[in-house]
Amino acid sequence: MKKTQYVVVGLGRFGSSISKELVKLGNEVLGIDKDEEKVDEMSHELTHAVVADATDEDVLKSLGVRNFDCAVVAIGDDIQSSILAAIVLKDLGIKKVVAKALTELHGKVLQKLGVDRVIYPERDMGIRVAHQLNSPNLLDYIEISKDYTIAELSVPKRLCGRTIKQLDPRAKYGCSVVAINKQSGVIIAPTATDIVNENDVMVIIGTNDQIEEFESEVIR
Amino acid sequence: MKKTQYVVVGLGRFGSSISKELVKLGNEVLGIDKDEEKVDEMSHELTHAVVADATDEDVLKSLGVRNFDCAVVAIGDDIQSSILAAIVLKDLGIKKVVAKALTELHGKVLQKLGVDRVIYPERDMGIRVAHQLNSPNLLDYIEISKDYTIAELSVPKRLCGRTIKQLDPRAKYGCSVVAINKQSGVIIAPTATDIVNENDVMVIIGTNDQIEEFESEVIR
Amino acid sequence: MKKTQYVVVGLGRFGSSISKELVKLGNEVLGIDKDEEKVDEMSHELTHAVVADATDEDVLKSLGVRNFDCAVVAIGDDIQSSILAAIVLKDLGIKKVVAKALTELHGKVLQKLGVDRVIYPERDMGIRVAHQLNSPNLLDYIEISKDYTIAELSVPKRLCGRTIKQLDPRAKYGCSVVAINKQSGVIIAPTATDIVNENDVMVIIGTNDQIEEFESEVIR
Amino acid sequence: MKKTQYVVVGLGRFGSSISKELVKLGNEVLGIDKDEEKVDEMSHELTHAVVADATDEDVLKSLGVRNFDCAVVAIGDDIQSSILAAIVLKDLGIKKVVAKALTELHGKVLQKLGVDRVIYPERDMGIRVAHQLNSPNLLDYIEISKDYTIAELSVPKRLCGRTIKQLDPRAKYGCSVVAINKQSGVIIAPTATDIVNENDVMVIIGTNDQIEEFESEVIR
Amino acid sequence: MKKTQYVVVGLGRFGSSISKELVKLGNEVLGIDKDEEKVDEMSHELTHAVVADATDEDVLKSLGVRNFDCAVVAIGDDIQSSILAAIVLKDLGIKKVVAKALTELHGKVLQKLGVDRVIYPERDMGIRVAHQLNSPNLLDYIEISKDYTIAELSVPKRLCGRTIKQLDPRAKYGCSVVAINKQSGVIIAPTATDIVNENDVMVIIGTNDQIEEFESEVIR
Amino acid sequence: MKKTQYVVVGLGRFGSSISKELVKLGNEVLGIDKDEEKVDEMSHELTHAVVADATDEDVLKSLGVRNFDCAVVAIGDDIQSSILAAIVLKDLGIKKVVAKALTELHGKVLQKLGVDRVIYPERDMGIRVAHQLNSPNLLDYIEISKDYTIAELSVPKRLCGRTIKQLDPRAKYGCSVVAINKQSGVIIAPTATDIVNENDVMVIIGTNDQIEEFESEVIR
Amino acid sequence: MKKTQYVVVGLGRFGSSISKELVKLGNEVLGIDKDEEKVDEMSHELTHAVVADATDEDVLKSLGVRNFDCAVVAIGDDIQSSILAAIVLKDLGIKKVVAKALTELHGKVLQKLGVDRVIYPERDMGIRVAHQLNSPNLLDYIEISKDYTIAELSVPKRLCGRTIKQLDPRAKYGCSVVAINKQSGVIIAPTATDIVNENDVMVIIGTNDQIEEFESEVIR
Amino acid sequence: MKKTQYVVVGLGRFGSSISKELVKLGNEVLGIDKDEEKVDEMSHELTHAVVADATDEDVLKSLGVRNFDCAVVAIGDDIQSSILAAIVLKDLGIKKVVAKALTELHGKVLQKLGVDRVIYPERDMGIRVAHQLNSPNLLDYIEISKDYTIAELSVPKRLCGRTIKQLDPRAKYGCSVVAINKQSGVIIAPTATDIVNENDVMVIIGTNDQIEEFESEVIR
Repeated sequence: MKKTQYVVVGLGRFGSSISKELVKLGNEVLGIDKDEEKVDEMSHELTHAVVADATDEDVLKSLGVRNFDCAVVAIGDDIQSSILAAIVLKDLGIKKVVAKALTELHGKVLQKLGVDRVIYPERDMGIRVAHQLNSPNLLDYIEISKDYTIAELSVPKRLCGRTIKQLDPRAKYGCSVVAINKQSGVIIAPTATDIVNENDVMVIIGTNDQIEEFESEVIR
Repeated sequence: MKKTQYVVVGLGRFGSSISKELVKLGNEVLGIDKDEEKVDEMSHELTHAVVADATDEDVLKSLGVRNFDCAVVAIGDDIQSSILAAIVLKDLGIKKVVAKALTELHGKVLQKLGVDRVIYPERDMGIRVAHQLNSPNLLDYIEISKDYTIAELSVPKRLCGRTIKQLDPRAKYGCSVVAINKQSGVIIAPTATDIVNENDVMVIIGTNDQIEEFESEVIR
Repeated sequence: MKKTQYVVVGLGRFGSSISKELVKLGNEVLGIDKDEEKVDEMSHELTHAVVADATDEDVLKSLGVRNFDCAVVAIGDDIQSSILAAIVLKDLGIKKVVAKALTELHGKVLQKLGVDRVIYPERDMGIRVAHQLNSPNLLDYIEISKDYTIAELSVPKRLCGRTIKQLDPRAKYGCSVVAINKQSGVIIAPTATDIVNENDVMVIIGTNDQIEEFESEVIR
Repeated sequence: MKKTQYVVVGLGRFGSSISKELVKLGNEVLGIDKDEEKVDEMSHELTHAVVADATDEDVLKSLGVRNFDCAVVAIGDDIQSSILAAIVLKDLGIKKVVAKALTELHGKVLQKLGVDRVIYPERDMGIRVAHQLNSPNLLDYIEISKDYTIAELSVPKRLCGRTIKQLDPRAKYGCSVVAINKQSGVIIAPTATDIVNENDVMVIIGTNDQIEEFESEVIR
Repeated sequence: MKKTQYVVVGLGRFGSSISKELVKLGNEVLGIDKDEEKVDEMSHELTHAVVADATDEDVLKSLGVRNFDCAVVAIGDDIQSSILAAIVLKDLGIKKVVAKALTELHGKVLQKLGVDRVIYPERDMGIRVAHQLNSPNLLDYIEISKDYTIAELSVPKRLCGRTIKQLDPRAKYGCSVVAINKQSGVIIAPTATDIVNENDVMVIIGTNDQIEEFESEVIR
Repeated sequence: MKKTQYVVVGLGRFGSSISKELVKLGNEVLGIDKDEEKVDEMSHELTHAVVADATDEDVLKSLGVRNFDCAVVAIGDDIQSSILAAIVLKDLGIKKVVAKALTELHGKVLQKLGVDRVIYPERDMGIRVAHQLNSPNLLDYIEISKDYTIAELSVPKRLCGRTIKQLDPRAKYGCSVVAINKQSGVIIAPTATDIVNENDVMVIIGTNDQIEEFESEVIR
Repeated sequence: MKKTQYVVVGLGRFGSSISKELVKLGNEVLGIDKDEEKVDEMSHELTHAVVADATDEDVLKSLGVRNFDCAVVAIGDDIQSSILAAIVLKDLGIKKVVAKALTELHGKVLQKLGVDRVIYPERDMGIRVAHQLNSPNLLDYIEISKDYTIAELSVPKRLCGRTIKQLDPRAKYGCSVVAINKQSGVIIAPTATDIVNENDVMVIIGTNDQIEEFESEVIR
Repeated sequence: MKKTQYVVVGLGRFGSSISKELVKLGNEVLGIDKDEEKVDEMSHELTHAVVADATDEDVLKSLGVRNFDCAVVAIGDDIQSSILAAIVLKDLGIKKVVAKALTELHGKVLQKLGVDRVIYPERDMGIRVAHQLNSPNLLDYIEISKDYTIAELSVPKRLCGRTIKQLDPRAKYGCSVVAINKQSGVIIAPTATDIVNENDVMVIIGTNDQIEEFESEVIR
């Protein structure tokens, strides 16, 4: 199977992280940055890495970028270059272009130009960390809908040795245990007699209120 | 109940996002930045927002920071200020200090200084986006363990009207459907006869390989 | 009759020229610039002139810009501000937004954002001056179609006292004399016996080739 | 016939536009700029393009500039260089030197130094655009004298199918139709029975007042 | 008698020196500089000293500069400001405008603009010092014509007690002694029996060659 | 005879002027500047010109500077480099070091370091020009003592054809005519019957008061 | 007794340290710096602290500096200001002026200007630290002459309980123990039966070789 | 014996001084600096000197730094680089790392990172010089304990010819003379009949008060 080809414009912290992960997932990645030093650092990590100005259509053409499957505009702090690179990449006919935005206004411009997905890494990560700080045992979570969440909660020492039955999230709080991650392995859909220990992680599903109540009354 | 008190140092994109979300979650937040403009913008969103140099211990003392429950060092691009603010905050005796790091080395220094959690927003968000690009139907995910993942997958038009039975992720791929998010509401632990439609989102649990196979053969 | 209301963003050479001319033509003009000095200089020439950041939607709203009939984005050399101001003005619902572009790519972005007319002052003026240099007697011209032009030609000393008949542009070159501007006044649709003198200016219409031939063989 | 030779000093937006148009019109153009990047970009468009300091007489001599027919000083934003280049070019004995001015004072200095024509691209283009904004159907115009203008007006949908007779600019407003640009071609000196359609463009001649009245009452 | 009124633009080393000397010679001097500090330093030395931009005609008018007898453009290192100030001062109708030039080309522009005298302080002082270094006993000199010079020579210890007769510059070298400056006073047109002593200074007149020979053979 | 060897440090306006004049007077000059461009410009005018840091003793030694007869520190605007170069040159044992000073304090430091002569070109030239402006006919002058001056005065049209007798500077004003520079040649010690004409220049000697009175009553 | 009055110019790390220590030793100190922030920080530590330019004689006079007993020029990194401040302070007649030098050449200039003592803090501290690194037990030392040193050596655990007799520095190495600093107090001129313990510090006197041999063979 | 190997990061004034002294004491020193010029200057003084970024672990590894005995972080003014270099050097496993700190806070960070000794050269030198200024005859001193000091005092002319007996520091002030440094050599433990002369230096031991009293009453 032909590998998916990505071009990543901007090899700063966000761009280099996305590039390396895409390579690790088995894709081909062409990294582009104006800064020679950044390109040098990434040259062994990516399929290709070149020093180039991604706002210059001729340069991108000569790199064969128009045949790529997806482009990521990960330019650090230069809104102008981000916008110009986005329009050049769309004009080259790349099917999917995603771009990082610095501000709401920047994001709005990118959307008007036809960018398929606009990402706000610092804003989104800020929200995620705020939730984790707010619920100290919350390790990670997915918001399934406006109301429902899947939450990954660390089991405190205090609860060590309890059975799911004893914690009883379903009956008391209305949320179910989807899985328990134990050192011995992951138990999917655990039964009432399964025991949690320190350092175990419970994955539960429920409404936001149910989970919050369960987390603050039982787990914390 | 007394509200939890946070001090957030640095009100850039990451700091302002974390601050606003913490306030939204019902906490008190004191925001600090050297830049008057940023403080002005945030002054109506936070409990307090002040222009101050967070590397000056006397300044932080006079703001009563030592009585706060948690401090977030969200300083943008200035590694030196981030390090100095972190040590000052630890020295003031704040129980929990989390800090954003720009590089691995920066993160290592923060840890040596006793920072409780080091966050790499751009790197982590880059990894998350890479996974989503790699599996176009993947909306979000939690890595439960090295092997197991919970994935949120959008249902493509093509599968519209199929029952869980027909898709049969359990028998063919070994992964279970934890929930389906439908316009009419979330179905937790759906049964074999539940039907998926376009725009529905399936939440499944399984090993990485199982989910990847299911995603690439069935969903994509 | 209610006067037309224009907002002009950027009071540099282009913006101040357009603003002053619009006022002279009987319109109301609000001039906006970040630079206090430029605003001061224009404050007596325009209906209003304010120091403001036109990329900030709240600022423009508070200035009542959404009720204006037309906006001109005349920002000097800052492509980013030009783009952001353009999208803010379009978002405010102003019916007609025209904007100055520095490069083709900049112009393309502006068009994608819905800007109604994109202007390239230096490029267009360059073309106009090139034509005038190329035909030393050419004072001004309108390109009516790809083929037809109306040209304003100064009459050289050498042709002083000739009649239109003698010059005979129609018969020999196929182009007609639309008007002659003489010190005594403009003669519209001159007859064969009208005489041209030094310092007169002939306005002729014809195909580009006809006019060029006439200009180079008769007038020059 | 020997081609006319132009030297254009400064290859920014104005200088590159004038240079390219002069080449397109069949002339030879030597482009000079201090900025290597600009020279590279233009090197395939012009007869010659060199990196040089045009305020250095010896450099210009070694380029053989003294034998050129005309020099254009199109230096972007550096008044000092513009003035020094102008005097050097005049001293070399070039017959015709035209120069772009940024301010009135700059223009006055250029004139005192003997520059044959001073151009204000942004100012003049600003005036032109102001007129077009003021009369929305006005596409272009030539001011023949202080009183008379030739205007190019787009025909609105509303007037579609009318004859010249019906519009009757001559009788009611005193201005004559010089030409109509139709998709099928240009009709010069149209008759009363000629019909205008949407997208046609009328070229009319008359006093400013006549044209303004006609434009605002009939065309708009 | 009405005092002569000078305006000196630029209060750097040259401008402040000329201003102070003009005041010392009994004139009225208005000093102008953009730099507040320089104006403060000179405010007690000059008739008036103001912070102003001398390239702004309105500013100079409001200072009443048009009624001054003479203007000195002594602007330090900014050729553009020097040129613009010069043309503004000429336009205001000041009878005599002298200006300091940094380079030959700068000087040429100033002359074309009608500046009455162009001064090159560093160049001229360099030449003067070179002559003094070349003839160690030469204190000062005036070049009367291409051939003739008046030179001021210090008398070395070695010649102490000699009479003019003994030195005999007229007979041996062809140059005459115009004066001797002795501690007791100046002797004009000394006779053959006048005696020179150490620390006396002889003023002689002759051709360059005569003086050089006399200086190198007798005096040095 | 061995030529005198000068080293001139700093090839700006003052340094290059002094260097070129010293060469013209038959000396050998080594020019030193940090700026390659300046050295290139002077390399054909001087005996040697090198790019070097004159505050580095080893560099100067390797250039053999210690054997030179005289050093001129003509460094433009960098007081620190001027001081350091001066002390290095003195330490190398050069017999005569002269240096340009920017301020009184700078001059005082140079003197303390043993510099043999401190020159203030802009200040001294300012004084000279002030005198010339004050007496419009004064071309040049030497101050022989505090009281006596030799002045070079241009003869105005008005006095054309007068004899020395008629002007009678001696009897009326007490000052004598030392020479007249006429187109036909210089007349030394002119007699009472010698006639002056327009464009002639008179050289007179007398006290300052005598000359001022003569200049203002007769010549002006 | 009248307190000694010091003026310290430059309140950086060196200047503020010296100032505070002089105050602690009972002197009056006037601190001067151009940087308002530094002056603010020191204002409570010193007798007086003012924002001023110490290269301006008038400023120093108005501060009454001429009556001070001693001046310290502790200017950070600006050689020019250091030199100019030094000469101004000497000119004011202050009896003792000490100054920090950055380089040998800088120090030489300061000495020529009459500065009484030139200090090289970083160089001298570097030498001191090098000696301590070289002999790990060496805490501090004084070089009495080129040959003799007094050294302060920490006693290692290994030697715990030994008598001076047993260590016998005099007989074996030729150096005498001047004192022992024990927790219980300092023993001056200890006898042969005095015992050293861990954490004791021995002060010994001897030639450099003797001490080095003793340190490396016995103590280390 | 294998020589001790030091790596010194930062070759400014402090770093170069420590490096050169360590070499002089017989050690091997590798000097590292980012600035090529500084490395060039030191390359002949040190065992090795390289241009490198000491905050890059890979670079330090490739230089073999992990096998060195001791590292000195002597980075001039860049707190961030100092901190990052310190952690990298500690991570490489170097047994002893000493570092220069600019501020208390900087020093505290270095200590938390495990730096073995933190040095404040300017602060410590400032204290030392303050003591010397305070006691003009104090040449150097060691603080043995909080109370006891060894001081090196210059003998003033006034005391010339006195015996130790006559000065009698022991009886009157309680402090003993440890040694006298005379031109003829050092006398250790001088007797009552030993005589001091001008230019001799006495080394005495006693409490701070005793020495101060002796110094101010006898020596000063």
